[in-house]
Amino acid sequence: MPFYSERALQRINGEVLLLEFGQHPAELYEPLHYILGLGGKRLRPMLTLLACSLYDPEYEKALPPALAVEVFHNFSLIHDDIMDNAALRRGNPTVHTKWDMPTAILSGDMALVEAYKLVMQVRDDLKIKAFELFSEMAKAVCEGQQLDMLFEKREQVGLEEYMEMIRLKTAVLLGFSLQIGALVGGASEKEAEKLRLFGEQIGLAFQVKDDYLDAFGEVSKLGKQIGGDIVANKKTFLYVKVLELADAQTAAELQKLYMESHGHHDEKISKVMEIYHAWAIASETEKEIERLYAGAMEQLKGLSPGIFATSQLKKFADTLMQRQN
Amino acid sequence: MPFYSERALQRINGEVLLLEFGQHPAELYEPLHYILGLGGKRLRPMLTLLACSLYDPEYEKALPPALAVEVFHNFSLIHDDIMDNAALRRGNPTVHTKWDMPTAILSGDMALVEAYKLVMQVRDDLKIKAFELFSEMAKAVCEGQQLDMLFEKREQVGLEEYMEMIRLKTAVLLGFSLQIGALVGGASEKEAEKLRLFGEQIGLAFQVKDDYLDAFGEVSKLGKQIGGDIVANKKTFLYVKVLELADAQTAAELQKLYMESHGHHDEKISKVMEIYHAWAIASETEKEIERLYAGAMEQLKGLSPGIFATSQLKKFADTLMQRQN
Repeated sequence: MPFYSERALQRINGEVLLLEFGQHPAELYEPLHYILGLGGKRLRPMLTLLACSLYDPEYEKALPPALAVEVFHNFSLIHDDIMDNAALRRGNPTVHTKWDMPTAILSGDMALVEAYKLVMQVRDDLKIKAFELFSEMAKAVCEGQQLDMLFEKREQVGLEEYMEMIRLKTAVLLGFSLQIGALVGGASEKEAEKLRLFGEQIGLAFQVKDDYLDAFGEVSKLGKQIGGDIVANKKTFLYVKVLELADAQTAAELQKLYMESHGHHDEKISKVMEIYHAWAIASETEKEIERLYAGAMEQLKGLSPGIFATSQLKKFADTLMQRQN
Repeated sequence: MPFYSERALQRINGEVLLLEFGQHPAELYEPLHYILGLGGKRLRPMLTLLACSLYDPEYEKALPPALAVEVFHNFSLIHDDIMDNAALRRGNPTVHTKWDMPTAILSGDMALVEAYKLVMQVRDDLKIKAFELFSEMAKAVCEGQQLDMLFEKREQVGLEEYMEMIRLKTAVLLGFSLQIGALVGGASEKEAEKLRLFGEQIGLAFQVKDDYLDAFGEVSKLGKQIGGDIVANKKTFLYVKVLELADAQTAAELQKLYMESHGHHDEKISKVMEIYHAWAIASETEKEIERLYAGAMEQLKGLSPGIFATSQLKKFADTLMQRQN
């Protein structure tokens, strides 16, 4: 059976609704069902099924690990929203807002356990590998989130450590989603490793594109004002790239703009944008996205399923890359 | 080699110091080393080694799961301290006080992953069982903590649900600590199950004793004033037992004393203690502790290692029961 993404998406959404974690106390289990029910693109579990389908037409056997990466993702959303003091998630109240902070901490903890349980529902000879890869991935995500929080407090962030932070925080989960799907499908470790690297590279490209759109996106397509990251003093690829490229005076000016907490958002945005334009940050960022995208495509070459099968992965990557919001 | 608890304790303390979780970012890993370094009785890992030693003199093979239960325990301490808004832990600042709340959430998450990794360091044919038992235990502890928080907000808590809450929150981890140690030592599942039940019963007795001492302990031995739970409006065994035994008027009076947030602590304590005395709560509680202790001892009967070996478990239980603080 070939991989139809619409059908697979429906299947994932159906399975997410059927997930049962426990009953009592309801306050522990409802938040996880709630956040899973807010929808989202189910990008990660889709990648797991897609990777499996490259090696085995019966991609349904990858449903448990696909659900594991979705539950893990939602675990990290529940906890990250507390840390980031976020009130809304996909337009709805975050778990700690709708319930309270202790409930959000505990529901998240429980979700991490449930994700572990799901990822272990693979064939026997794969369980230990799945466990080890999942644990490694989970630790990397914790490291990435901690680095992200640390960077918020720092003036100076290097380009290399910024890329490592987004790799850990965002990209490794995409890489794992593909890797575990491929292994379940029967891919060799070497093949699965290529898919993992593909996922990581696309994850990096995706995140840098995110930074790019915040400053250079078209407002009409973005659905929000540009410069949200600038107002929030968020260290982005653009910001760290300027610090790398520019002269000391410009760097100091940018850092000063970020350190000051002034109320004139428009003025701040236009001053930062001026620096970005002066140093051609748009094209620098486009170049980096291209480079990462090309790196991802490189991994697809020579995969045993051949160009026809892997073209679906390319399509997937292209959809991600072409997004305007 | 017979089981010498002093030697085993030193071994555990040594191994705890040697644990390596990761390096970067330091802010993610330091808090776990910090809280593990605050000491404590290492009760849970000791139980794991002790249970293993009943079936295999080389109890060191149970060190990884012993460390797993200790790391898991500290994971729950880090997160519980946030939820309970506790400033001190063993006389030192809690993790969220020494660092901050986001760091405490993330370090806790990472600790849960590390505990999983440690518990899987058992012989191959035991890994899946260890994983499943550990996951079940972890969920139970989450449920127990959630119930504890819910009970704080409720007027009415039944005796049965109170006992179930402390079972989940405290006792199942003691039970698991023994069970996994026994399995590593080569015990049959049935034997290990008996040890698990022994641990749960002793855990319950331990917790009820804790409630007892807060009201009926000797101040000179307790090292603190009595009535701390009363001041904190904590639903204890004593409180729920009165609600079960007493007439409606007394129950209403007790609930009123707990609902009011007045500043007259001494008056509140003496009024609540008056009710406890009137309903012979001290002897009722002593009876319950005896009953739970007897239930634990019942599980030791007929264990294959025989009375001489299991006498060490009895000694352990007696030490717990005889504590005055």
